[in-house]
Amino acid sequence: MSNRLCSRFLRLGYHFREIKQLQSRNVHTSLFSAANWKVGKINHVAIAVPDIEKATAMYRDVLGAKVSEKHPQEEHGVYTVFVELGDTKIELLNPLGDKSPIQNFLDKNKSGGMHHICLEVDNIDEAIKDLKSKNIRTLTPSSKIGAHGKPVIFLHPKDCNGVLVELEQV
Amino acid sequence: MSNRLCSRFLRLGYHFREIKQLQSRNVHTSLFSAANWKVGKINHVAIAVPDIEKATAMYRDVLGAKVSEKHPQEEHGVYTVFVELGDTKIELLNPLGDKSPIQNFLDKNKSGGMHHICLEVDNIDEAIKDLKSKNIRTLTPSSKIGAHGKPVIFLHPKDCNGVLVELEQV
Repeated sequence: MSNRLCSRFLRLGYHFREIKQLQSRNVHTSLFSAANWKVGKINHVAIAVPDIEKATAMYRDVLGAKVSEKHPQEEHGVYTVFVELGDTKIELLNPLGDKSPIQNFLDKNKSGGMHHICLEVDNIDEAIKDLKSKNIRTLTPSSKIGAHGKPVIFLHPKDCNGVLVELEQV
Repeated sequence: MSNRLCSRFLRLGYHFREIKQLQSRNVHTSLFSAANWKVGKINHVAIAVPDIEKATAMYRDVLGAKVSEKHPQEEHGVYTVFVELGDTKIELLNPLGDKSPIQNFLDKNKSGGMHHICLEVDNIDEAIKDLKSKNIRTLTPSSKIGAHGKPVIFLHPKDCNGVLVELEQV
């Protein structure tokens, strides 16, 4: 066997060992990434609404779901109502203050509409590092504490098929 | 006590008994309805995309989720790819044929976007009867078999805060 061929086999052997080590540590492996974070279930779908009392009544009285009180989330510029749906949620959003981040969306969608989807992750810092290395843009440089008191980050809709995707560490 | 007052108390007593009976049968009760169906978790969020291979690659290779093959759903006029996210799903939709029901949505949302949300129910016929009595319009008169082989019905977005809501019996 030539030195060159031998060296190729050695490199191949190294990759096999590396993948095996990652698998034994129960880390996600694919042909494309060996990231040490995992995506989980849909945590919530956020729906921006022009009338949060009317929307809350629809989910409570028409669909019979359990709904929270209306909470002002001043640091996020929204009022929220959480609709409990099994181990998932709908988050109703209504603008709070003059610079609400959802005002522009409601100006374009006057009856309301789905604003973003939130997916759970087990390690948000690893997720951010990995996604940035794959050229996925985030709306802030690092995570911040979201409406549920947990670290969150938003991914750019242009990198996610036109959908604003939030990641939340659970 | 006057006869009139007595009669009021009797009517009140009747309502209490009725509510108690419903509660003992583990049926949803609220001040507004005593429907014998329940809404459950978010089953899936459907995302219409202009390029289903690219969108599938994003969920598989960037987010590391398990994705299905692309299925043609001829009776629904769409191709589907299911993205497994815990016990929830994202359903990627791409037009199939000339009269696809999502073509209009994609013409308005060229990069793609959230098309509908699907909530689970335990009894779709009871749900439809109850929702119709509450003046919620459905897109078809009764349920039909959806992309997962289960009975589904769509509720009119104008009655659901601008969101197209699908109910699926599980």
